Amino acid sequence: MAAEARNLANGAERIDFQTDPSRYRHWKLAVDGDTATLKMDVDENGGLFEGYQLKLNSYDLGVDIELADAVQRLRFEHPEVKVVILRSGKERVFCAGANIRMLAGSTHAHKVNFCKFTNETRNGMEDSSENSGQRFICVVNGAAAGGGYELALATDHIILADDGSSSVALPELPLLAVLPGTGGLTRVVDKRKVRRDHADFFCTTEEGVKGRRAVQWRLVDETVPNSRLDAKVASRAKEFAASSKRNGNGKGIALTPLERRFGADSVHYGFVTVEINRAERVATITIKAPEGDAPANLDAALEQGASFWPLQVARELDDAILHLRINELEIAALVFKTIGDNAKVIAYDALLHANRDHWLANEILHHWKRVLKRIDVTSRTLVALVEPGSCFSGTLAELVLAADRSYMLVGEKDGDNRGPATITLHDVNFGTYPMSHGLTRLQQRLLADPKQLDDAREKIGASLEGDDAEQLGIVTFALDDIDWEDEVRVFLEGRASFSPDGLTGMEANLRFVGPETMESKIFSRLTAWQNWIFQRPNAVGEEGALRRYGTGQKANFDMQRV
Amino acid sequence: MAAEARNLANGAERIDFQTDPSRYRHWKLAVDGDTATLKMDVDENGGLFEGYQLKLNSYDLGVDIELADAVQRLRFEHPEVKVVILRSGKERVFCAGANIRMLAGSTHAHKVNFCKFTNETRNGMEDSSENSGQRFICVVNGAAAGGGYELALATDHIILADDGSSSVALPELPLLAVLPGTGGLTRVVDKRKVRRDHADFFCTTEEGVKGRRAVQWRLVDETVPNSRLDAKVASRAKEFAASSKRNGNGKGIALTPLERRFGADSVHYGFVTVEINRAERVATITIKAPEGDAPANLDAALEQGASFWPLQVARELDDAILHLRINELEIAALVFKTIGDNAKVIAYDALLHANRDHWLANEILHHWKRVLKRIDVTSRTLVALVEPGSCFSGTLAELVLAADRSYMLVGEKDGDNRGPATITLHDVNFGTYPMSHGLTRLQQRLLADPKQLDDAREKIGASLEGDDAEQLGIVTFALDDIDWEDEVRVFLEGRASFSPDGLTGMEANLRFVGPETMESKIFSRLTAWQNWIFQRPNAVGEEGALRRYGTGQKANFDMQRV
Repeated sequence: MAAEARNLANGAERIDFQTDPSRYRHWKLAVDGDTATLKMDVDENGGLFEGYQLKLNSYDLGVDIELADAVQRLRFEHPEVKVVILRSGKERVFCAGANIRMLAGSTHAHKVNFCKFTNETRNGMEDSSENSGQRFICVVNGAAAGGGYELALATDHIILADDGSSSVALPELPLLAVLPGTGGLTRVVDKRKVRRDHADFFCTTEEGVKGRRAVQWRLVDETVPNSRLDAKVASRAKEFAASSKRNGNGKGIALTPLERRFGADSVHYGFVTVEINRAERVATITIKAPEGDAPANLDAALEQGASFWPLQVARELDDAILHLRINELEIAALVFKTIGDNAKVIAYDALLHANRDHWLANEILHHWKRVLKRIDVTSRTLVALVEPGSCFSGTLAELVLAADRSYMLVGEKDGDNRGPATITLHDVNFGTYPMSHGLTRLQQRLLADPKQLDDAREKIGASLEGDDAEQLGIVTFALDDIDWEDEVRVFLEGRASFSPDGLTGMEANLRFVGPETMESKIFSRLTAWQNWIFQRPNAVGEEGALRRYGTGQKANFDMQRV
Repeated sequence: MAAEARNLANGAERIDFQTDPSRYRHWKLAVDGDTATLKMDVDENGGLFEGYQLKLNSYDLGVDIELADAVQRLRFEHPEVKVVILRSGKERVFCAGANIRMLAGSTHAHKVNFCKFTNETRNGMEDSSENSGQRFICVVNGAAAGGGYELALATDHIILADDGSSSVALPELPLLAVLPGTGGLTRVVDKRKVRRDHADFFCTTEEGVKGRRAVQWRLVDETVPNSRLDAKVASRAKEFAASSKRNGNGKGIALTPLERRFGADSVHYGFVTVEINRAERVATITIKAPEGDAPANLDAALEQGASFWPLQVARELDDAILHLRINELEIAALVFKTIGDNAKVIAYDALLHANRDHWLANEILHHWKRVLKRIDVTSRTLVALVEPGSCFSGTLAELVLAADRSYMLVGEKDGDNRGPATITLHDVNFGTYPMSHGLTRLQQRLLADPKQLDDAREKIGASLEGDDAEQLGIVTFALDDIDWEDEVRVFLEGRASFSPDGLTGMEANLRFVGPETMESKIFSRLTAWQNWIFQRPNAVGEEGALRRYGTGQKANFDMQRV
């Protein structure tokens, strides 16, 4: 099902984003009190696809899926961990970055999807530091090149061994004629504030920078001789733990395996169902509200573990989106539907929002934030259909606000005895779930007139029917039953007929209005340029640098500057 | 010399950015008191290249060169003009946008360069409104489609005829599988603050939007029946003139033709010289300081007219950059050099800065700002070489700060009896010339530590030699005479050996650090996505929408979403 020229290794039918530490082939996770150590020790025969070996701690998507899993588990399963030390399990090499043979033999779509996911993983590390107080320290012992240095850039503190050979580098441009694909350029100048001409030198120098200059130019935070390296790491870990705001204690929640059932045209989870109409190129994602009442407090929620409704839905939805993105490339539109009782959804939001300083509520709300951000950067048309019996309220209302277009049915549906669809807003729609550029979905939607945002805020808790929701700017179109089917069908047919590339570019521009942050710049400016270069013959053509790397032949460039 | 598949019309050897109203084929400029009318009336047989006709007021680069010229002349030649009315000279069509046959037959490089220049022209209209008080009113009578509506979007006020047929539209995606190429998507949501789902509807609807909905959705400012249209335009013009801050009166400065001499590998202007080394793929741009003293005041400057040094140099440099961008595609690096007396350069800056409220000083400073912004988005490596005898001070210091890399020679040069090179900063380096993202070049350069900016400010007026300039972060490397030649040569050779596409993407990302504005988003996010799509087979392949438009055959898309 994975539409790659290459075959997946071990006869796998699809790329699977679910894993757990017992299955890791590339990482070793060890927890000691408030400090975790995450060791990268890539199994060179453990590539996701056939046809390449992951030498020198180079990585592919499979390696990153494990890293993302580890970062996620540290937040939920280890409330006691305040510092994560990221280091290499190999001698004399930290990480050589994304595997070049993997890249050279990948489809354009896979390269783009690969970079998107690795970006999300690195953003997740920064999110963990900022919002969960799990601070990351990176120990670079050996060469950190390309994606290897980008991994270091996602941490809070980079310690470089001062041994005359350990170095950091972004050699993509001189070696491969592409850009660092995981935020490197942006993080160098925007996060670490390396001066732009120093960055220019650094990014055009194959061998990178080491020692004193690396510190002077802000590329790393400190260099330490090998003899004092472990002692320094330990003392930094202690220091970072002391300043961490992480307030969890006691046991965490085990992220038990998701229960999933894949059909030819469907995926069934506990609360989430994906149904694919291949003729229409539409995937419908239906989310069910909880049936029981919300637990009385967070201790009771902790007891429920991974089956606590908001956590289970977030994990299922995340997996569904990732699956559709990479394994179902021909789907044009994701249609979101919900089923259930608005009040039950709101009750869970109320519980989490009231206890948002509790470590578990904090983790679940930030997890939802990240799932919603993942949806925002998914290159499929996003649609919400708000019909009788639906429960697009509170957190689930964010799906309506994330949609490129939303339709809400006014009044009752012929032959359906449920009352009119309603949406209820909650405090969580006004700050809990910022997009990557820092605004909430409602805020950016109503940017033209701040008064509209106040109007929406006044309606918190109200049951808004179609006309009200349209009036408030929450849905695009409110339609009655007579027009509903035709309008929605014509819209989805149109969408399936347009150029997929054009839609990707258009949606990427219209979805983010207003300010930019480092994170949004990585997904917009940097990603777009990278995608452009990933198509240019100078990189991917027969004589391009990516194809010729390692062959002994030099790339042959078209020297026109565009 | 123009590296297009197509031939330039009338046997022209190169694309020329110089024109004047007596030569316009597509625009009519009329001035009546404080109001100018700019009528678009494209000569369909006046295309810049052979092979297409400019029907329905569609445009190519030649049409836009005239528009840019008119906008520029209004600022310098008409200090009395406070309102510019932009309208169509044709019946029942405002403007059909960029000519599709022109686009379909253009090289990728030409499409990118074309969009860059048209973007700069529209930004120039907004700059005129904001900084010169020349407010733009657009009268849309007939269809304003694609680039036609984007032209309207660059004005302050859009009046749409309410006649049942006049409409605004961005049909690029549904018709041509590309994005609007001149800022349309960004201006719709960021400038006019059209809600993103309304924008989604609008940008996927071939026929566009008219009448009441166009106003409700903020796509236009008002609709007016034809019978009252002229009266309404007159009253709006009066109103806008009354609120304009333009304070010029008396006569303007005639922008007389630039004196240029093109050689096979050179262009000679009065103060600016371009010399091309084709083997090394380097163009050296040398700017000469004035020889005489600055005039005593602005009245004396006015007397000098277009030969007033700062104005003449800005116009010459602008033309040189545009020429190199589009006619010399294989040049990898632009090397800036200067010759002359720092004190003389600073004296002109002092005159303009002290009189910056005078309309002429205001125009010249903003013209320099735009020339420098044009350099910032030029996709060639920018280099400044600061040698003995140079005068990179004040305004000319911005070229050092705009460079991707700068080298400054420390001490004297063997066999050169001039003293060491120095740079003198002036107030103009601290706010007069913001980049498109709103920061000055020095500000973004020293973003890591605000104290460094204060240190630089304290050195205003000082003669900074190489080591001081390096210490303050103004130049990348200070080198003595022994290393100079080798270091610079190795750098330029390296630069010429890298992938031109990779360099374009890298420089576009490293040059703009920190915040983003609507303008910088247009050049970064939107442009990058557009460039990506401009390469995709779904747009430009044999069966792509751009190639098949008008053939009666539908495009055949690869339906994978990337």
